[in-house]
Amino acid sequence: MLEELKKAVCAANLDLVAKGVVIYTWGNVSQIDREKELVVIKPSGVSYDYMSSKDMVVIDLNGNIVEGKWKPSSDTATHLELYKAYPQIGGVTHTHSTNAVAFAQAGMSIPALGTTHADYFYGDIPCTRELTQQEVEETYELNTGKVIIETIGNNDPLKIPGIIVKNHGPFAWGIDAANSVYNAVVMEKVAEMDIKTLLLNPNSSMSQYILDKHYMRKHGPKAYYGQK
Amino acid sequence: MLEELKKAVCAANLDLVAKGVVIYTWGNVSQIDREKELVVIKPSGVSYDYMSSKDMVVIDLNGNIVEGKWKPSSDTATHLELYKAYPQIGGVTHTHSTNAVAFAQAGMSIPALGTTHADYFYGDIPCTRELTQQEVEETYELNTGKVIIETIGNNDPLKIPGIIVKNHGPFAWGIDAANSVYNAVVMEKVAEMDIKTLLLNPNSSMSQYILDKHYMRKHGPKAYYGQK
Amino acid sequence: MLEELKKAVCAANLDLVAKGVVIYTWGNVSQIDREKELVVIKPSGVSYDYMSSKDMVVIDLNGNIVEGKWKPSSDTATHLELYKAYPQIGGVTHTHSTNAVAFAQAGMSIPALGTTHADYFYGDIPCTRELTQQEVEETYELNTGKVIIETIGNNDPLKIPGIIVKNHGPFAWGIDAANSVYNAVVMEKVAEMDIKTLLLNPNSSMSQYILDKHYMRKHGPKAYYGQK
Amino acid sequence: MLEELKKAVCAANLDLVAKGVVIYTWGNVSQIDREKELVVIKPSGVSYDYMSSKDMVVIDLNGNIVEGKWKPSSDTATHLELYKAYPQIGGVTHTHSTNAVAFAQAGMSIPALGTTHADYFYGDIPCTRELTQQEVEETYELNTGKVIIETIGNNDPLKIPGIIVKNHGPFAWGIDAANSVYNAVVMEKVAEMDIKTLLLNPNSSMSQYILDKHYMRKHGPKAYYGQK
Repeated sequence: MLEELKKAVCAANLDLVAKGVVIYTWGNVSQIDREKELVVIKPSGVSYDYMSSKDMVVIDLNGNIVEGKWKPSSDTATHLELYKAYPQIGGVTHTHSTNAVAFAQAGMSIPALGTTHADYFYGDIPCTRELTQQEVEETYELNTGKVIIETIGNNDPLKIPGIIVKNHGPFAWGIDAANSVYNAVVMEKVAEMDIKTLLLNPNSSMSQYILDKHYMRKHGPKAYYGQK
Repeated sequence: MLEELKKAVCAANLDLVAKGVVIYTWGNVSQIDREKELVVIKPSGVSYDYMSSKDMVVIDLNGNIVEGKWKPSSDTATHLELYKAYPQIGGVTHTHSTNAVAFAQAGMSIPALGTTHADYFYGDIPCTRELTQQEVEETYELNTGKVIIETIGNNDPLKIPGIIVKNHGPFAWGIDAANSVYNAVVMEKVAEMDIKTLLLNPNSSMSQYILDKHYMRKHGPKAYYGQK
Repeated sequence: MLEELKKAVCAANLDLVAKGVVIYTWGNVSQIDREKELVVIKPSGVSYDYMSSKDMVVIDLNGNIVEGKWKPSSDTATHLELYKAYPQIGGVTHTHSTNAVAFAQAGMSIPALGTTHADYFYGDIPCTRELTQQEVEETYELNTGKVIIETIGNNDPLKIPGIIVKNHGPFAWGIDAANSVYNAVVMEKVAEMDIKTLLLNPNSSMSQYILDKHYMRKHGPKAYYGQK
Repeated sequence: MLEELKKAVCAANLDLVAKGVVIYTWGNVSQIDREKELVVIKPSGVSYDYMSSKDMVVIDLNGNIVEGKWKPSSDTATHLELYKAYPQIGGVTHTHSTNAVAFAQAGMSIPALGTTHADYFYGDIPCTRELTQQEVEETYELNTGKVIIETIGNNDPLKIPGIIVKNHGPFAWGIDAANSVYNAVVMEKVAEMDIKTLLLNPNSSMSQYILDKHYMRKHGPKAYYGQK
């Protein structure tokens, strides 16, 4: 079942390796079929080197395995929590990419300092608060989803399609698996730019009107970037 | 029309990927045919992975499409402004390369600290002032060109064939498309060297006579670097 | 003799190159056959480019060559000291990987700042004290092993499967050669994350309960990461 | 003439690209035939992409072209000055590798902070003084050689087979062309380690007896590293 979706999710997972944002098993990508209310996700702890679309796991929104020979990613509950909260999200990516993790470990948001950022993220990429001991010990992966949602608050998650979980790393999302990977790669690149920027000038900032302009020329109602 | 020029511009765009200074669609290169007053430029938002010379767009100096199935780069107005201001320029490159962007985000010029810089850029690579809100909201890409020209002032643009646009990133130029890419790659490499230099010693500097010597031995009337 | 083990040890050594953590001859990997009390190790100063399993050296626990045409790694005595002290260790890796070496040269432990670290290392990766002049001049490689053991103290070496030797570089270990290489690669990646983290925020830290959670979900009695 | 030597010098030049320490034409390697008193060196400004052994230039110790269709490297006078001063040197390499250049631009020596350094360089890799305006304007490349020799002073150049020329970049040497490239690559790697080390701890240092031990176990009269 869902063979096309499994191929897309597997390809998105392998793209993480091709883009240099994961080594070993340090990332996972999923995509949801909204009609069937089923999610296809990477199996837990399986190496990218030997992974094919047949290894993808199909689960329902309660995390029950519907098809597949492997256990799903240990971060599955986080993915599901995001799909349940935001109907506009179609794909979710989690990585431990180096520069985004540095912000996570530093407990800092990735500030919107330039147009590269503004082309994809309409504002700072926030860092969540630290999870409490109880949240970590009880249902950790579920609560990781909850703290992401708490941090997003009333904002549209597609306007800033990513977040930094404190002491952990980046989660990104998008309209589908491939788009969530794209946003994860951009987040990593922007994080690298920002570390270097802050080393050059700790007081760096960008005016709101530049952020508005670049985000809107790609994503606004009068967007004119790219082809129709 | 302009088949040779389209091949050259396409190759120059793909060279940005090969040299590691762009990912996704984060760069654009153009070249002008001065006799015909036509410019060949990369299409907007088209992936480098599938791009061939047939995708290049031919425009006139007012930005009208003369040939091509795609819209030209969203930065086209900036390229055209530079071609109109400087008859000695034949090619223009824009990227979001990491280290040059760090200087742009920090609002700092790339200082001339060593002979690698001096071999190509006869002085600091300046950072423009921030565009005003009005400049951004009205004709942003055109005004990006104007602020570059304002920053160059009375200097010869080929003596320092590149600039940093504040909060945005680098633009480079040269005698043709390939040469503008070359200068963009050098600018990125020099920016990387300079970030590390400034971390080691924030007071680093180079004497004017070393800058003179290295620039002149490659570009002066008595140049002796390279073959005749 | 030990042909399968030689293949495994050679492959583990070559994996160091593939993972980008060594150049030239800057690393060595060994694995022990506990039943036969024999160790297979890389030859000293032999290039990875021309190395095959036939070049591996078989030694006993006193360092005597049992089979092989080459001298064993100059760090052999360190490997043997670790095998003798810890029966639970099956493989040892030494590299000069850039970021871990930076911590060694700075005389600093690699702090546990995030879940990437916590997934493999149950606490800070300690930096040994400096060896004394006498320790260096008399039996340097043996004493390097001794100072590692002194630093581990009463801890289980598999809970934090790596260490930083001051002014020198990282040693990692694991259940076999491949696992020790894996841990060496993780240590390098975590060191890179931590340098960037500390540049962003010198006061970065992680709560003990997050460290507990991530380590235990992979390595504890109720581990649920990966497949059964 | 000198066909074997030309092949070796060409291969050494191309190895600079393979090792990632040069782009474009930013490096040059030479080797001397001491019996014939002839030097084979890279041509000036010729791309590595199209270079073969036939492009190498043969010159005498006065810099006269003995064979070859191209002009020799613009840094030829520096190479020759080193060959004339030090009969024990067989090969010379110059690059603009990023991290070594950062030290050059900062006007700092690359400090001996760890055993990676100590395995090849018996002490800090010194940074020359700045050349005077007269030295730069009159015979720049020759004076670059002279200031290197002045900085080495009475030391054996093979004990610290490299140097940083202020505001310029690294020169390395060795018993032949390949060995000089090797030392240039090590210098670049050590420079990278040291920048990160100094960011972690600006007061980093290494005891003299560790430097002695590592250098001597590879290069001393009782060396035991590597094979006989």
